[in-house]
Amino acid sequence: MARRKQIYEGKAKILFEGPEPGTIIQYFKDDATAFNNQKKAVLEGKGVLNNRISEFIMTGLERIGVPTHFIKRLNMREQLVRHVEIVPLEVVVRNVAAGSISKRLGIEDGTALPRSVIEFYFKNDDLGDPLVSEEHITAFNWANPQEIDDMMALALRINDFLSGLFAGVGIKLIDFKVEFGRQYEGDMMRLIVADEISPDSCRLWDMETGDIMDKDRFRKDLGDVTDAYREVARRLGVLRENESSGQTGPVLVSDNEK
Amino acid sequence: MARRKQIYEGKAKILFEGPEPGTIIQYFKDDATAFNNQKKAVLEGKGVLNNRISEFIMTGLERIGVPTHFIKRLNMREQLVRHVEIVPLEVVVRNVAAGSISKRLGIEDGTALPRSVIEFYFKNDDLGDPLVSEEHITAFNWANPQEIDDMMALALRINDFLSGLFAGVGIKLIDFKVEFGRQYEGDMMRLIVADEISPDSCRLWDMETGDIMDKDRFRKDLGDVTDAYREVARRLGVLRENESSGQTGPVLVSDNEK
Repeated sequence: MARRKQIYEGKAKILFEGPEPGTIIQYFKDDATAFNNQKKAVLEGKGVLNNRISEFIMTGLERIGVPTHFIKRLNMREQLVRHVEIVPLEVVVRNVAAGSISKRLGIEDGTALPRSVIEFYFKNDDLGDPLVSEEHITAFNWANPQEIDDMMALALRINDFLSGLFAGVGIKLIDFKVEFGRQYEGDMMRLIVADEISPDSCRLWDMETGDIMDKDRFRKDLGDVTDAYREVARRLGVLRENESSGQTGPVLVSDNEK
Repeated sequence: MARRKQIYEGKAKILFEGPEPGTIIQYFKDDATAFNNQKKAVLEGKGVLNNRISEFIMTGLERIGVPTHFIKRLNMREQLVRHVEIVPLEVVVRNVAAGSISKRLGIEDGTALPRSVIEFYFKNDDLGDPLVSEEHITAFNWANPQEIDDMMALALRINDFLSGLFAGVGIKLIDFKVEFGRQYEGDMMRLIVADEISPDSCRLWDMETGDIMDKDRFRKDLGDVTDAYREVARRLGVLRENESSGQTGPVLVSDNEK
């Protein structure tokens, strides 16, 4: 088999050319980075867990009619996705104040926001992914007003879905980040969810204990990062109950076993 | 005469109770501050110049139908203004990249923006007046969507007026900051321009030489700050030609002399 062509290597994923035009293989690494790459680590098994959690979430979104780039999972670390033109924005939906909004607006961590708040950050590592407003987005043509509206509407639907999904397994969705891509089909263009949705891109707190079950464990040096991710996967039913603890590597339930 | 009641002391102005209900006296100090109060100085004559420049601009805005808080100038350092409930936002309109947007978005100072860009900053010294988006503004109820639309429309009209005003006297309007207040009259509420519009709140570059004629002279330690403000006032016709140079204090043209 010929060596696949690498298209892009990001902080947590590598993209390879897919088997057919318009497809891409998304490989999940174990690398973790935070604070704009200043903090780095390898968290063994993280990629495998995120591959499976993101598959589970994207599949659920497709089911409610939110289009995503996900086609199918190929193996432990790879999934086949649609090739898209990534909108250079990180779309963040916040339900509870945590992280940068707490600092920026002087709100205590854990305070429920008056309503869900959508934020846009310009994807640019050199600039530290700065917060931007619709004015910046349209002036610099990162997205047009209709696309902004569409992303906001989709982001709110995703928020509703994820809030429900996690509430069902005793987890509170504090916030999450999503990216969108433009998929071209003939003359048509549509915005679809791209990248991944996983504990790397969500803040997830245990409803009972308030325990942090996401990447903040890494950012805040709380330890047991992959254990927390594994617990999220376990609760979502992605891991078998009897294999969910005391394992070094996560054990996945295959589709026909579920 | 009884001592007037001070309502508020800001960085560059003091507000006193006005002679009638619904009015306020705005006193222009010579104090200059920058970088969220970390840099301070007294620039002799600045308050007198800003009082007069702001009067001139506010009067011009009223003439084109942009409502302002300005009623009349009382003396060298004071003007009578309408009492308003200040919207806790600084509304910035930028035509050319300079200052924080250059740094935030990695744009070289002096680069023309693709179009005028409106930004909102939350007025809060403790937080360093952070950039906010419409989502933050509406979620925290600092202004409602209609008010945001109205402020944006007014800000663009002010930008057109100021661009023309300064272009006519050989000055390029790079950007400016404006504040709005809610004025209540019976059941009616309207948004009007408040605070001041002066070289303290605008970036103004000489069209020929590119010389900085605004508060950046103070921020960047370029010296001759009040001289630059005096030159702006002189070009706008607020100072007599023969009194516009070599003076320690600015000499003002009274209304009936103009």
